[in-house]
Order: sequence, then C-alpha cells, then structure tokens
Amino acid sequence: MLGNKSYLHCLQRQQAQERWWQKLDEQGYFEQLPCETVAVEFSLGRITAGSVFARQSVPHYNGAAMDGIALCAHDSFGAQETAPKRLRLLQPGEPFAAGGCYAIDTGDVLPNGTNAVIMIEDVHWADGMAEIIAAAAPWQHVRIIGEDIVAREMVIAEHEVITSADIAALLAAGVEAIEVIQRPKVAIIPTGDEIVASREELQAGKILDINSPMLAAALTSWGATALRRPIVKDERRCIVEAMEAALRESDMVIVIAGTSAGRDDYTADVLSELGEVLVHGVAMKPGKPVILAVCQGKPVIGLPGYPVSAMLTAELFLRDVAQARQKLPLTATSEETVTASLVKPVPSTIGMEEYLRVSVGQVEGKTIAVPVRRGAGLISSLTKAQGIMRIDAADAGVNTSTPLPIRLLRHARPAQHTILAVGSHDLALEILGVYLRRRMPHVSLSCANVGSMGGIMAIRNHEAHIAGIHMLDEATGQYNLPFVQRYVPGFLADLTDPTNPMDLTNPTGQTERTGRLIHLALRQQGLIVPPGNPLGIHSLADLTRPGLTFVNRQRGSGTRMLLDKELGKANIDGCQINGYEKEVATHMAVAASVLSGTADAGLGVQAAAQALGLAFIPIAQEQYDLLLNFSPDDERLQAIIEILHTMEFRREIEALGGYSLCKAGETVQVQ
Amino acid sequence: MLGNKSYLHCLQRQQAQERWWQKLDEQGYFEQLPCETVAVEFSLGRITAGSVFARQSVPHYNGAAMDGIALCAHDSFGAQETAPKRLRLLQPGEPFAAGGCYAIDTGDVLPNGTNAVIMIEDVHWADGMAEIIAAAAPWQHVRIIGEDIVAREMVIAEHEVITSADIAALLAAGVEAIEVIQRPKVAIIPTGDEIVASREELQAGKILDINSPMLAAALTSWGATALRRPIVKDERRCIVEAMEAALRESDMVIVIAGTSAGRDDYTADVLSELGEVLVHGVAMKPGKPVILAVCQGKPVIGLPGYPVSAMLTAELFLRDVAQARQKLPLTATSEETVTASLVKPVPSTIGMEEYLRVSVGQVEGKTIAVPVRRGAGLISSLTKAQGIMRIDAADAGVNTSTPLPIRLLRHARPAQHTILAVGSHDLALEILGVYLRRRMPHVSLSCANVGSMGGIMAIRNHEAHIAGIHMLDEATGQYNLPFVQRYVPGFLADLTDPTNPMDLTNPTGQTERTGRLIHLALRQQGLIVPPGNPLGIHSLADLTRPGLTFVNRQRGSGTRMLLDKELGKANIDGCQINGYEKEVATHMAVAASVLSGTADAGLGVQAAAQALGLAFIPIAQEQYDLLLNFSPDDERLQAIIEILHTMEFRREIEALGGYSLCKAGETVQVQ
Repeated sequence: MLGNKSYLHCLQRQQAQERWWQKLDEQGYFEQLPCETVAVEFSLGRITAGSVFARQSVPHYNGAAMDGIALCAHDSFGAQETAPKRLRLLQPGEPFAAGGCYAIDTGDVLPNGTNAVIMIEDVHWADGMAEIIAAAAPWQHVRIIGEDIVAREMVIAEHEVITSADIAALLAAGVEAIEVIQRPKVAIIPTGDEIVASREELQAGKILDINSPMLAAALTSWGATALRRPIVKDERRCIVEAMEAALRESDMVIVIAGTSAGRDDYTADVLSELGEVLVHGVAMKPGKPVILAVCQGKPVIGLPGYPVSAMLTAELFLRDVAQARQKLPLTATSEETVTASLVKPVPSTIGMEEYLRVSVGQVEGKTIAVPVRRGAGLISSLTKAQGIMRIDAADAGVNTSTPLPIRLLRHARPAQHTILAVGSHDLALEILGVYLRRRMPHVSLSCANVGSMGGIMAIRNHEAHIAGIHMLDEATGQYNLPFVQRYVPGFLADLTDPTNPMDLTNPTGQTERTGRLIHLALRQQGLIVPPGNPLGIHSLADLTRPGLTFVNRQRGSGTRMLLDKELGKANIDGCQINGYEKEVATHMAVAASVLSGTADAGLGVQAAAQALGLAFIPIAQEQYDLLLNFSPDDERLQAIIEILHTMEFRREIEALGGYSLCKAGETVQVQ
Repeated sequence: MLGNKSYLHCLQRQQAQERWWQKLDEQGYFEQLPCETVAVEFSLGRITAGSVFARQSVPHYNGAAMDGIALCAHDSFGAQETAPKRLRLLQPGEPFAAGGCYAIDTGDVLPNGTNAVIMIEDVHWADGMAEIIAAAAPWQHVRIIGEDIVAREMVIAEHEVITSADIAALLAAGVEAIEVIQRPKVAIIPTGDEIVASREELQAGKILDINSPMLAAALTSWGATALRRPIVKDERRCIVEAMEAALRESDMVIVIAGTSAGRDDYTADVLSELGEVLVHGVAMKPGKPVILAVCQGKPVIGLPGYPVSAMLTAELFLRDVAQARQKLPLTATSEETVTASLVKPVPSTIGMEEYLRVSVGQVEGKTIAVPVRRGAGLISSLTKAQGIMRIDAADAGVNTSTPLPIRLLRHARPAQHTILAVGSHDLALEILGVYLRRRMPHVSLSCANVGSMGGIMAIRNHEAHIAGIHMLDEATGQYNLPFVQRYVPGFLADLTDPTNPMDLTNPTGQTERTGRLIHLALRQQGLIVPPGNPLGIHSLADLTRPGLTFVNRQRGSGTRMLLDKELGKANIDGCQINGYEKEVATHMAVAASVLSGTADAGLGVQAAAQALGLAFIPIAQEQYDLLLNFSPDDERLQAIIEILHTMEFRREIEALGGYSLCKAGETVQVQ
C-alpha cells in the first residue's frame, strides 16, 4: 500500500533496533535525564534520580519494645526464682537511682539511667515494689536509636523504582521530598488529510485517529507522558512546523505516517531535513514502513498508519527507548511467554519477520496457538489475540510440529484457563463466554472462526475444546452427528452404554476420549436484505436476477453448505448468481455488506439481520451444536452445560432473534 | 508486645484467609460493584463493567486498500499480457459505465459500480486509458465495510482489563465512553496517641505515621483509591466515630492498630460492636495481631502497627479482596518467584508461619537467599530485601539444603544479576554498588552484614560473590590473606604461576575456583566520641573509667577483633569496660549510639564519625579488602576492578573521611 519506494531496502528488525539504540546512546540520550522533585508520599513507581540518604535515624530515640518496666540491667543481676529481686517504682520525671525502675509502655522513651526492659508479664507487684525473678540482659527489649536505619545511611539507591515500602522508609528517615527522573515527554503527531479527530467528522473516506489515543495510553503504561498534537495536513510545510514545535517541547517525537505512498516518503524527507534518518523500512510484518530518525539529539519515529502496525512497531522500537530514558528496567525479558504449537501451518515471507497474533489455550495438556486474522489494518486482531508469535525472517513459515514461544498480551489470564472455540461463528458462543466468565472469573473463551468443517478437524487433531457446528448430512437428513462420527470416529462417549459409567473413566482409571455433542440452538437461516426488502426478494431463485448482487460465506462453513444444498434443491447453479464468488467469514459480515449496499442479499442467521435492522426472509431452520472436548471432570464442561440450561442464558440468546434454545444443553445421543 | 490476650488463639493464615473470603462472598461483596462512566481515551487499565458492543462497523465504508484504479472486476476478465484490456478513466463524480475506471488512493471510497482495485504499479497509461494485463478478482484490494469489526459485534467482554489496543478498537467502533467498575474506596484510619502526622511534630516517644502513606501507595498499585483519614486518639468514642464515618464513605476500611496491648483489643471491641470480628490473630510472623472483620457488609481489617507487619498482612489479606472487588485478575499466582537455598539455617516457631525477608543472588549457578534482619519493626528489612520466603507453620525452621520458593519484591531485577556481598559492612561497598549500577543497569549489589569471618565462610560455602574483610593475623602481621588461605584453601588463583594463564581456565576447559583478593581501602579505625570529646577520651585505657559507657561490635567482626587485639596489647580486660557486652552490627550503629548518648564511645571507622558529626580518636589503620568469587570471564568482575581504579570512585570514598584508596583494585598477591 505504500508503493515500492526506497524503504523496500529494508533492514532486519534487530539491525534496525541496534542502529537506533547505538545512535541514541552515542548522543548521550540515555544520560541527560531531567529530574523533578516530588513529595515522597506520591512517588510510587517513580525512579530515583540519585541515591537517597537518611536524614534521621529510625528509631530516632531509644524506646521500649515491650510494655513493662525499664531498669538498669545491672540491678537485676542475680535475680532468680528462689531469690527474687525487688525494684523501687520511680515516678515519671523522677531522677534514676540504683535499684529503681519505671513503668513503661511500648514506644515510650527509655528513661536516663536505664538500659533494659522486663516484660509486664514477668513482673510481680508487691508492696508497690516490682519483683523480678530473672536477670535482664543489657539492652533487652529496647529498640535502640538507628536500629532500623542510621542517619546518613543509604535508604534507596539511584535509579530504583520506588515501592510502597520505600515510601515508608524514606518518610521514617526524614525524607519528605525526593528527586526523581522526569517522565519523558513524547509528542504524538497524527498526519493525513483523511484523518479526523472525532466521530462527528467521520464520513465515508475519512478515518478516525485511533492511533493517537492508543499510543498515548501505551506510552502512559511505559512511564512516559504523551503530548497529543493536532492532526497535521499532508503539506510539507505543516509537517515541518509541527515537527519543530514538537522537538522544542518533548524528549521524543512520534509521527504517525498515514498510509499513502507519497506522504510517507514525505515524512522521511522532512526528518532527513531536520536530522538524520537511520532506518527507513524494516523487514517485518506488520510494521514494514517504519522510520527511525534522530533530530536535534532526540529520537523521532515514523509509525505506519495501520493501528496494528503502529502498536507493534511502537512496542518494538519505542518502549525500550522510553523506559531506558527514565532508567526503568527493561521489561521485555520479564514478560510472560508460553510455548505453543500452531493449529495450522502458517506460511510467511522469507526475509520478513512476522508478528502473528494468536489465541492460546491448553488442549489435552498441549498448548495450542490459533492464529487470528492477519491484516495489519485489523485492530480487532490485537484485541482478540492473547499472544504474539514471532516468525523469524529466515523462515518460510511455521509448521504445526514446532512449538514456538509466544509473548502473552493479557498476561493475567494463563493459557491453561483459556477455552479454545474453533469452528462456526455464532453470537451465542460469544455470549456463552461472558456467562462462563461470570462463574469462573479466571476462564476466558477465545473464538476462532474457521467454519464447521474446520472446527471438526481441530477437534480431531486435539487442538480445540469446542467446535460450533451446523452441517446437514443430506443422506440421513441429520445434523452434525454423522460428520462427527465420520471424521472423528470413537470420539463421542456412548452415554447409553451401561458398561460406560457417567464419569467416563474406564475401570483402569485411564481416561478415554470422551467427547460430547451438545445442542446449542435451532437457528433460523435466511436471506438478509435491506430494510423493507426494496428488491422484493422472496426466494433463492430471485438471487439470479440480473443486476442483483449477492454476498456469500466461505467454503466449509455450514451456511455455505446450506446454501449449496438449497440451491441444488431449487436447481440453481452458483454461477448464475452475481456475487456468489464474494466470500466473507461471518454472519455479521454478510449483514454489514447488505447494510452498506455492497450486496443486495446474503444468507445468514436472523440475529445478524435483526442486529443491523435489516429485513429477513427465512429459508431453513438448522441445528447448531457444540462439539465439546473436555475431560469429564473438567469443571468448565459442567459449567457450560449448566449455563445452557439456565433460563437467563436461553432468553438472552432467543432475544437476538431466530433462535430456539428449548433443547440447549442436551446431549445429542449416539444412535 | 501485645500481651497474651485472646488473639493468641491464632488461626492459621490460610484458614483466616478462607474464613474472611467466604464471609465476604456470602454477603455478595464481590458482586455489588458500583460503576462509573469514563472516556474511552482515559480508560487504560480499568475494568469493563459489562461487555461492550460496536456501535459502527470498522471500516465504516468500502474503501481502496491500495493506490490504483477502481473498476468492475468483470470488465477485467480476459486481460493478459498478450491481450491487454483498456479501461476509460472516469472523472470523480461521473457515474460508472461498463468498461470505465476511476483513479483511487488508499482509503478512498470505492465508487458505486466498482468492486475491485488494481495497484497503480500494474496499470499502464496509454492515450488517457488505463491498460491492464491481468484480470482482477472481485473485491481484490478492497477493505470492505465491517472487515475488521462489524456493528453490534462484541468488542470487549465484561470484566476485562482495558489495554491500549482496546482503546483503539473501542474508538474505531464508535464507543467514546465506557462503563467501568469503580475503583474500590479504602479508608485508612491510623490510631494511637503516640502517632504524629508530620516531621514537625516528631519528638522522642512520638512515632511518625508512615503506615498511611505506605498503604495508600500499595492500594493505588492494587487499583484501589485510598482515602487517608486523620490520626485517631486512643479513645473508644473517637475510634467508633472514625469507623462509622469511614464505613459511610468507603468500600473497605483499614484500622492501623498501633502496638500497645490495651488499644489493640480496643479496636477489636469496636469492630465487634459495629459488625463481626471473624479473625483476631493469625499464626504468622510478622503480622500476628491482625484483625479481620465485616461491618455493614464491608471488610474491615485491623493491621498491626509495625510497618513490616502492616505491609505483609495487607498484601496477604487486603490485596486479593481489593482486586476481586473490581474483578481484576488476582496477581498472586502470576508473580515472579525463584527457588533458592538459604545461606544459613533459620530457626522458626512451630505453629507460626514466618515471612522471612531475603536477598537473592546466583552464586556459581546456585540460587542463594541471604536473610536480612528479621524484626517486624524494621522497615529497612522490606526495602533492602529482594524477596520473601515463607516458612511453613509446621516447620521448626529452614535448613540450608532445602531450596524453597521465594516471592520476588523488585521483580524487574532477576536473581542472576544480583551480586551478593556477605561480610563486613562498609559504606564504600554500598557506593561501589551505585557505580556498578551506572555501568550495568541490570545489576544490583545486595549487602548482608555478618562480619569478616561470616563473609569468609560464605565464600567457602559457595554462597557469596563478595566478602568485605579486614582481619589482622597477629602471627604474620598481615591482613586478610592468611585467613583466606587458612579457611578457603586453594580458592585464590595464583596469578604469578606461569602455568596458570590469566584466563584462569585450565587446558581441559574446565573452570577451577578462581577467587581474587583485591584491595579496597586502608581505613582509619578509632574511638567515636561525642562532638568536642567532653569526657577527654584519648586511648583505650580511658574506656575503663567508671561511669563511662562503651558500645561494642559483634563477635566475628573485624572491628571487634581489632579491639580485642588492641586491648590485649594494652593489657586491658573486656570486663573492665562498661558496655563491652552491648553489641551492634555496623559502624553507623556505633556512631548512632554515641550520637544518642546511649554510649560515650565506641570503636568504628572515621567515616561513620564524620557522617554524624562526631569526634574521632584514631587507634589503628587497617586494610579492608574484597574477596571476590566470580568466574574470570564474568563482566561484573571486570567492572568492579575498573571502578576501583577510577579517580571518581576513589575521591568519593576518600571524601567520607579516614580512607585511603591508593591501592584500590590491586590484587593481593599470594605469597
């Protein structure tokens, strides 16, 4: 999308990082660190600019560490049970005299002349005298001055991240304000004639600037301060002015380059004029058209306009620099990673490093990664992914046998708790995920939409927990079960077999494959057409009308099979239908095509039509089932079946339109 | 320190956690979650209150994904290199006609009638016509509406932590404001007559409230909002009023109990009156006197007054509750832990769980934990520790052979980068740590002060990288080397042996023990006395004067050995000196004792006297060396030696007073 310009002479990612880091280091960028003074109380997470030394000792006086009596230890020597010693109780303020003692509470100042405390429990009172039956060691139960921290001692070293315990120690040591390293200020300059700042300005051909708020949030989490600048038009003079202003006020500048070929080179030109372009183009995907420059001793990065590219390149090139600038320990190494095998081989371009977004789950003890969609333009590929797998530039792709490390994105949810749903897409599945999470907050459900057949194959290969399927076997007239028995023989537990008890483990205690096929819903499939059905479409035959445009689902999907079967029944050939070759991956994508006018009709579920306010012509009711692959004692299996039986869940799905859940949760019995 | 009251009927920690959690759960505490609306732009890290659905599709129109021409794919069918097709260029706004095309840029709206884009590189211009030599597939290079996100699709599920990519996706999907779970408000009520809020009010017998700011910071990092309340006096009525006000305005209340016996039970009484006390006293150390209660359906926790106890019990009992309240994934499990062996056995009380603060480092491939001081009152034990080792209630202690898991506190600094310095204490060592970190930001130096002999033993047991030592061998008159040769025979590399090359590996490639003894400094030791030396102390003999009080260093320390040797030369017996039995662990602690008037004199280094403005009577100059245990190719070894040779480091140490570093960094040669 950027034209085969100069940046095609791409550097490898690591070379680019090194060139950028080395230049910044040479220029002393990581050394000239502006500081600021903050109240210790509010310094959590900041980085100390220098080592901090105690201004007072802690404790700052000799005090009692127990409730009891303060005495001179010498006076207690010789006391035994058989020969107690008696000490005269002195009044507070009364000068110490040998053989005397004072009543004292924890934290009280040790009176002059005394050097030990005896616990109240070990003191007998008799005739106003304190009777003791054991000698006190000098300084016992006394917190002596400086016992914790001594004045002038180092309390916290330079370039440390301040913790809550540090705050307590600093305040105790008399330090109330502290020099910390200033958060680096990073200016973000969005550019592009087509970019708008608000939804109000959004119209066809315009693009909302979602990169600025996304990068601002990311920078905040990296300890930097983001300075968002106004959108700059595609004029050289404007970009120069914006750059110059940004360089004056910030420690680092991001130019979001937009996506058109001309302008990107333009940004590079401006950066060459204002400083030095070190890297233009990196052999990675997404993120190829990144620019790394240094202007006036400050790093300037040109990020690609697609949000996924912008985010990934910012993480690779900006984060370390922003963190090193404030002496934060680099987090890259301590991030959580898992090792997983891909569900399907993924080809990749040799010479190009690829960052593949994946869902990650554990199926039958094996960690499995399912790629989400790959387009750099798809921000949903980042939000739906749980991790990122790096495919080396030297590789032509990744096969399924090589487990590879994956950097986790939402690291609070470990892979062993993720349920991988691979198969046909349905809104009900996503809502099932919401209900599951309410019961089991650590569990998340991740959907990969590969159609019904893809789902069955994933179950066969031990690579999914759930496959949503809806496929009619024309020979038997039965939905789903025949396909499962054909492609995954022996998978389904025969619950009717009396020798096979409900707990589904055989007498040896060894677990067998114990899959279940469970009803989810009957779904109304039909033609989705514009509101009011202006073209008067009433049957599949109407789709062959000249001038009418159809939108299809992808091969292997249950909906596509339904269409082809219904077309067969009606004796219609797909090539008679204009748009038959245009495939999209979900019901909602079909509805969206109709809503936008790209297509006049498409086959999909009623819920999708209803969601977008479109008209719907019923064609067939189909059975949508869930093929479940859990061990019988997996609590997630039980939770799913329970949820499917609740009225709350059934009503919520039925309200979507075209669903009947009266048999939801029932096992489809093996015939 | 709290008297043997009811709380001695302690629950085990886990029982206490379960009882507390179960009660809160029963009362629906984790369900009634107040929400608030925030701008998506500023929602980073917040938790979604419900699932959020797209309000518009992304992209919101069919647009070109490339610069080029937009055409009807049908018009291109049949185009080949040998039989190019020509398309008439239509003007923008001109209605589409078969055989026509429009010039289009990336992001432009696809004109009506067209359904594909051909890249500009693949178009030849001839006579104002676009000539193409290959057919276009329908919808190629078109970003269709909803390709990324379809309107009404779920963008983010409920109870998810919002990431920067989520912010981008939500904004793209037309969602500008979002319902998130309110941060729980936690009131912090410090109590105690002796507690003061500011340094100005601090005097002997008063204690600064460092718990409130420490806990407020910790709560902030756990996603909660801390409401700091004024310090409450030890009066029942005041505590009741403060509690009632706090319960009105917050979701959770912390009462910091202070340390006196009477008042602690008092707090429990008040909580019993206002609600139900579930737990009073937990078998753990530190932290025993914790109170867990529920008042008006809200959790109320009474924390012990010692900051270490307060912090550890807050982490154990408060953090999970605060995080579950806002549906944050519990972090406890994903925290970084390492497994390490203790340097020395640590005894512990059976029936009492103990949380031991430790330094952690890797020595010769083995992960080693060195306990820091244990007192619950020592906040420095938390700030200097790198991890916490839990000793089970069933254990009488931990021996050195059992590696145990350690929860890391400053998890950005992995154990393999920590240098363990075990031995005699010296300020110069801490400053060496600062210099090291400037060169190697990932490295930190952790000092455990166990005296010179303890340091040699740690090296002998492969449990330290550095031992700071200063011990005079009376027989030879030589410092340090004789002890190393006696107690760690064969450890020091003979650098003068021509068969032993500098790289210190033998020809088989196997690494031998290759220790080094390196000069650090000549230190002036002497008597530290009050400013102006009011008692006119001029020699060790003066210490025997009646009425004069001395403070000593612990046995095994080089300073103690120096004292005993000098006393022997002067024919003085230790028992003639008042205070000879009072031991402290560092030079600074000696100086602090003198500054506070606890002692009239003590033996220590000049730097300590100078730091606290005390007078100093020189007694002897001693040699302080570093025994180093690194493999010869360890870059930290090289860095240490280089730093010791720099003028900058030498000047900084010499400015402390009483140091000479002219030989710093030189190897003490094996004789």
